[in-house]
Amino acid sequence: MRLSELGEFNLIKSLRTKYVYTSPEILKGIGDDAAALKLSVRTTLVTSDMMLEGIHFDPSFTTYYQLGYKILAINISDIFAMGGTPRYFLLNLGIPRTYNAGSVNELYSGLSRIARKFRIAVIGGDTCASRHGLVLSGLLIGDSDSIISRSGARDGDGVFVTDTMGDSAMGLMLLKRIGRKIPIKTQNCKSPMTNFKIGNSRFSFQEVFPLLKRHLMPDPRPLKNTSGVTSMIDVSDGLLMDLSHICDESKVGVVIYKDKIPISRGLANIAKDIGTDPFTFALKGGEDYVLLFTAPSDVKTKAFRIGEIVKKGRFLIDTRGRKIPFKPEGYKHFK
Amino acid sequence: MRLSELGEFNLIKSLRTKYVYTSPEILKGIGDDAAALKLSVRTTLVTSDMMLEGIHFDPSFTTYYQLGYKILAINISDIFAMGGTPRYFLLNLGIPRTYNAGSVNELYSGLSRIARKFRIAVIGGDTCASRHGLVLSGLLIGDSDSIISRSGARDGDGVFVTDTMGDSAMGLMLLKRIGRKIPIKTQNCKSPMTNFKIGNSRFSFQEVFPLLKRHLMPDPRPLKNTSGVTSMIDVSDGLLMDLSHICDESKVGVVIYKDKIPISRGLANIAKDIGTDPFTFALKGGEDYVLLFTAPSDVKTKAFRIGEIVKKGRFLIDTRGRKIPFKPEGYKHFK
Repeated sequence: MRLSELGEFNLIKSLRTKYVYTSPEILKGIGDDAAALKLSVRTTLVTSDMMLEGIHFDPSFTTYYQLGYKILAINISDIFAMGGTPRYFLLNLGIPRTYNAGSVNELYSGLSRIARKFRIAVIGGDTCASRHGLVLSGLLIGDSDSIISRSGARDGDGVFVTDTMGDSAMGLMLLKRIGRKIPIKTQNCKSPMTNFKIGNSRFSFQEVFPLLKRHLMPDPRPLKNTSGVTSMIDVSDGLLMDLSHICDESKVGVVIYKDKIPISRGLANIAKDIGTDPFTFALKGGEDYVLLFTAPSDVKTKAFRIGEIVKKGRFLIDTRGRKIPFKPEGYKHFK
Repeated sequence: MRLSELGEFNLIKSLRTKYVYTSPEILKGIGDDAAALKLSVRTTLVTSDMMLEGIHFDPSFTTYYQLGYKILAINISDIFAMGGTPRYFLLNLGIPRTYNAGSVNELYSGLSRIARKFRIAVIGGDTCASRHGLVLSGLLIGDSDSIISRSGARDGDGVFVTDTMGDSAMGLMLLKRIGRKIPIKTQNCKSPMTNFKIGNSRFSFQEVFPLLKRHLMPDPRPLKNTSGVTSMIDVSDGLLMDLSHICDESKVGVVIYKDKIPISRGLANIAKDIGTDPFTFALKGGEDYVLLFTAPSDVKTKAFRIGEIVKKGRFLIDTRGRKIPFKPEGYKHFK
């Protein structure tokens, strides 16, 4: 059914009945002028992130399911980066009039999947027509007993990341080469669909899958034990850029070691095959949505230690031991 | 300066230093992954509203100052419609790369003006490039001791509106005819700029001003005394449409009297001159951002009583006393 036949209010009504989530804290959910919450007295966290067609995604190789999933995922990542728990989500949605109701339903299915996984309630939003492409603007409310900001890093702290880096940027490059939608929906896709010819080699779907997955449906994970953590950020703009944010806010310098940056086997293999440096993806590629944090060097953690905080300067030690100053490089919106 | 030279992070930095607002409740404002708040134990209200170029506004006759003002104004209106007090605002902004920093600054000046007026803190948001026109997506957090929803109207209640209706829709029509930006910034514009020829007559700027103002920079006002109020909504979609929302949610009917609907002198004069019915604007025009509420008939209020809640049916009594059933008509996004 076309949205023009369904109409805005019927659309909202159908969403409202479809995605019910109750909690004694929610006094009013979707369907009034504002949502009403009875929040506990813990610290409330609020974050917002937007995804625009032609900037953050290309609908020719992203499904609506994946877009619905991702708009909440990237907001969750911000709450985790503050050491918090995500709770309530609002989605403002600008939908081209030519869309059919099925596309919007698919989008809400993806959103609903990740919302259920993290027990997040979708409590509101604004749904309207868009003249110029799909607009997704999310707002997530969370809470925390104590917050971890970007500004607490101290000279001597270790620098850690929670997962492999660069996978999302490589995933995006692969998607552009493949040039069509890959209908990934689940966490673990066991049925290999096909092989992909990339560069001179063929890669199996299993090998390519984690890279595509990381880009299309990133899975933010909280840091389980935050005791001792002095500063934290999620890597969305690229490792060098987000490291710079921590240095700026904490007024410190940093040294990281290229050979300590965790690289997935898939990224390494494909980069080698197409003759590029995987570290370019790991250092400057954005949207990995892993956590980057600092903590005293003797902290017990399963995260990867990639360097340390120093008083001044920002340096990358390359594989030959050379100390190279770096600048904040990554995705820039107004370049 | 072009945004491409300034860059996203310098833009955020300049906003962050320009619009400082401190409150002991704000633990972290702009500049981290999420804002952190220490909220009181009152009920928290959350609302979000979006404005898209080509749908909600035409930049050829709206200034950036007015857009910044309006995106917060329409969110404030939603909080007032719940009987709440607005507190914290986040703005997601998608900006075409061709914009210069001056336009964005102007937008933030308008936002800042209304934020200061209502003592609202701008605590965050996402700023990114847009490929397809300006995107403004706002989220406002407020609080309240008790909330007034759309669902409490009862048979026998009176129906009230807090101000004249239809001014915004007429203002929009006039702007389209004038076809250029009118740099209204203040509440009361005392210096008449010029006369406008509309239809067969000339109207002074003073006469046209309140209509343009209502459309470009609506000024939401709270209902001072909400005791006894059984349901409330802000008129954003049009009087008939928003009345229908109250009837739907409260499971009641309504009768309103055409000749009791407050019409401004400006609207009446201009409508007469161009040969249209002012009540079309008042009944179906959207974006008036006045409050529509129900309360027992004997309530003391300065608001205009326009009808009453009945058990069933939705009727308009016209000036000749005829009872005409009405359907929810107003702005529809997916028509």
